[in-house]
Amino acid sequence: METVEKVLGYSVNTWDQGFMDKLYASTNAVGLVSELLLATLNTNAHVYQVSPILTLIEKHTTKYLASLFALPPSTSGGISQPGGSASNSTALVIARNTLYPSTKSSGNGSYKFTLFTSAHGHYSLEKAAQMFGLGSSNVIPVPVDPLNGAMLPGELERLVQESKAKGETPFFVNATAGTTVLGSFDPFTAISAICKKEGLWLHIDGSWGGSVVFNPEYRATRLAGAELADSIAVTPHKMLGVPMTCSFLLGGDMRTFWESMTLPAAYLFHNDAGASVDDVYDLADLTPQCGRRADSLKLFLALKYYGEKGMSDRVSRAFANANHLLSLLQHNPNFVVVSPDPLPCLQVCFYFARKGRLSEDAEANGRLTSEVAAKLIPRGFMVDFAPGEKGKFFRVVPSAGTRWGTLQGLVRAIEEVAGELGY
Amino acid sequence: METVEKVLGYSVNTWDQGFMDKLYASTNAVGLVSELLLATLNTNAHVYQVSPILTLIEKHTTKYLASLFALPPSTSGGISQPGGSASNSTALVIARNTLYPSTKSSGNGSYKFTLFTSAHGHYSLEKAAQMFGLGSSNVIPVPVDPLNGAMLPGELERLVQESKAKGETPFFVNATAGTTVLGSFDPFTAISAICKKEGLWLHIDGSWGGSVVFNPEYRATRLAGAELADSIAVTPHKMLGVPMTCSFLLGGDMRTFWESMTLPAAYLFHNDAGASVDDVYDLADLTPQCGRRADSLKLFLALKYYGEKGMSDRVSRAFANANHLLSLLQHNPNFVVVSPDPLPCLQVCFYFARKGRLSEDAEANGRLTSEVAAKLIPRGFMVDFAPGEKGKFFRVVPSAGTRWGTLQGLVRAIEEVAGELGY
Repeated sequence: METVEKVLGYSVNTWDQGFMDKLYASTNAVGLVSELLLATLNTNAHVYQVSPILTLIEKHTTKYLASLFALPPSTSGGISQPGGSASNSTALVIARNTLYPSTKSSGNGSYKFTLFTSAHGHYSLEKAAQMFGLGSSNVIPVPVDPLNGAMLPGELERLVQESKAKGETPFFVNATAGTTVLGSFDPFTAISAICKKEGLWLHIDGSWGGSVVFNPEYRATRLAGAELADSIAVTPHKMLGVPMTCSFLLGGDMRTFWESMTLPAAYLFHNDAGASVDDVYDLADLTPQCGRRADSLKLFLALKYYGEKGMSDRVSRAFANANHLLSLLQHNPNFVVVSPDPLPCLQVCFYFARKGRLSEDAEANGRLTSEVAAKLIPRGFMVDFAPGEKGKFFRVVPSAGTRWGTLQGLVRAIEEVAGELGY
Repeated sequence: METVEKVLGYSVNTWDQGFMDKLYASTNAVGLVSELLLATLNTNAHVYQVSPILTLIEKHTTKYLASLFALPPSTSGGISQPGGSASNSTALVIARNTLYPSTKSSGNGSYKFTLFTSAHGHYSLEKAAQMFGLGSSNVIPVPVDPLNGAMLPGELERLVQESKAKGETPFFVNATAGTTVLGSFDPFTAISAICKKEGLWLHIDGSWGGSVVFNPEYRATRLAGAELADSIAVTPHKMLGVPMTCSFLLGGDMRTFWESMTLPAAYLFHNDAGASVDDVYDLADLTPQCGRRADSLKLFLALKYYGEKGMSDRVSRAFANANHLLSLLQHNPNFVVVSPDPLPCLQVCFYFARKGRLSEDAEANGRLTSEVAAKLIPRGFMVDFAPGEKGKFFRVVPSAGTRWGTLQGLVRAIEEVAGELGY
């Protein structure tokens, strides 16, 4: 009991209004119930035998998510993965093994594979490339539009051609729905056209921003063309208050998942040899994992409780809150906003700069940001920062439950703390 | 509420005495508390900032586990991973990137890497090889001793030489502490000598049997030489009643983890550039994962509550139970035992064969096994089976909480059900 109290006492309270650190927030009562249920069942979602209804829930939930993204109804589906990085890296394997089937048993061989991602993309692509024997230096960053942080399709096309001319084998484009720093959405339709033309797999890393799919307005404006992707990562534990971890890799054609992943392991899986992927109920056979928690239950119960309307409202409330903070900063002469307007996603990025005078010394700006961020913690605010051309800037992530008073308090607290520190 | 009841109603009750399916069992009150705590905190163990005490607990728990395995005190440690397969596959990356550092940024290049694992090893090695561009066919199975299922070091040596002679690059040996089917332990000291001589990384997949490290007797008899490994996977969610998932990858020298895994991601990690690995508190920088649940808390609290003695007793009780079932079967003329005696681990493997007459028709034996296993479920027993030379055989995994009456009931139930089915 004493230990439990200590753990609580020395932990960050993610339920606190002041918690606006990167890319996730607290859960809720339904989330707690779902975790308690999973803990009580304490079973393994690797085979149907020991997780019958949880397997069905995973198949149902992923099929439903795929339908929200308008992936092809007859062949689409998905699997849960232990986090967004896992979803992205699994997509890489499925893509390579599908487009170059010999690599599954023979390895990369003499192919010099290259892959492409936004210069603002998540580092998990590089990490996967260094793990998968592709090499992190073969992840080619595609320049972004300086105004909104979205990948430039013309640059992608040029870089793919350049790589082919060098005798390399481009095979994978990672487009991002909600980049880590600015929250940008890449232009999926234009990118898909290039992928189709060049024979590349289109993956969308929607770990962060993919959850806007629950809201018709943001789906239409942010996710146009997402239905053209071969695979999509989406991680409801970030924006939707579903407990950590809950991430999915969706696929337009689930046969590619099975063919890329399955290995003979008859001591474990009892799937029929001639089965179609719809008949595969030992789901670990489609994933890099063997032992697996049934994370899909957490999204399933949230949907049951809040309904589609509730999830949609959650997304629009979070955007309203982020936009409110943006507007506070835009109207305050002591801040220099970095985020594009309109905000692509929920991150609000900015510098504190008294009377708008941002130093040319990037180091000095960064020092200010990190010193102020540290001093905000005893005042009850936890916010993160990220590196930029003019030094580290604040990155604040309001969520659906953030109150406007809290955002006003944060702005005032930054001004006061900066003053105390002599800025 | 109705949904929750349905989920419970259509799930497998892993707390039931009759649950003896593969390689895990129910949790306990401490396990539930630890899951509830993690669910309530709902934080991310990727960076120290948002999980201060949970990060310290992970560093402490892994260091302690490494000390149980007698890994080098000054440099050893570990990280949690979302399952045994993840622990094994991460070891593969760390090994390759450490021994062949150019592969991290340049990929496998012209190396034709090979790796070695027991013919009875877990399929996660092949899965990792097919993911990592090494190719599943470059996982070379090493023959095992037909009596006890342990890897034959002489065969390993021969196969390594053979691979080198073909111009391949052997780099990794996976020894197993507790194979999936028979529960065999490989001879680590002899294997380590070969690895040292040939310049190979020695990994021990102790996902299942590594947990015997908590018991001095089984540690001495089963894990002799484990301290010579470069990395060890251990998954307390299997044998120790810690909730799913709780797995660790331990390393003899944690610098190899950091150097292999770290990538510049300053927008996320704020580790100092010149830091030593002991000073790394943003632990995701050492792992393939970004978002991570703080699974180490679950083992930490179990240790706090049950103590070392409690964990040790749990292991010896589980062995006593498995040995009791073995003895029941050995003294019953209607069973043919497959498991070695003494049992290496907790699996008890056997055929039902009335009056000891096991058919020469492997297919027929397998049919009997799977039909009986299915019919046991309505009687309250869930047991699995695995493929063998003479067809599928039963694989029953008693745990610390299994009562001897239950085991007697299982034996009788198999005899009765087989009779009902006409066997």
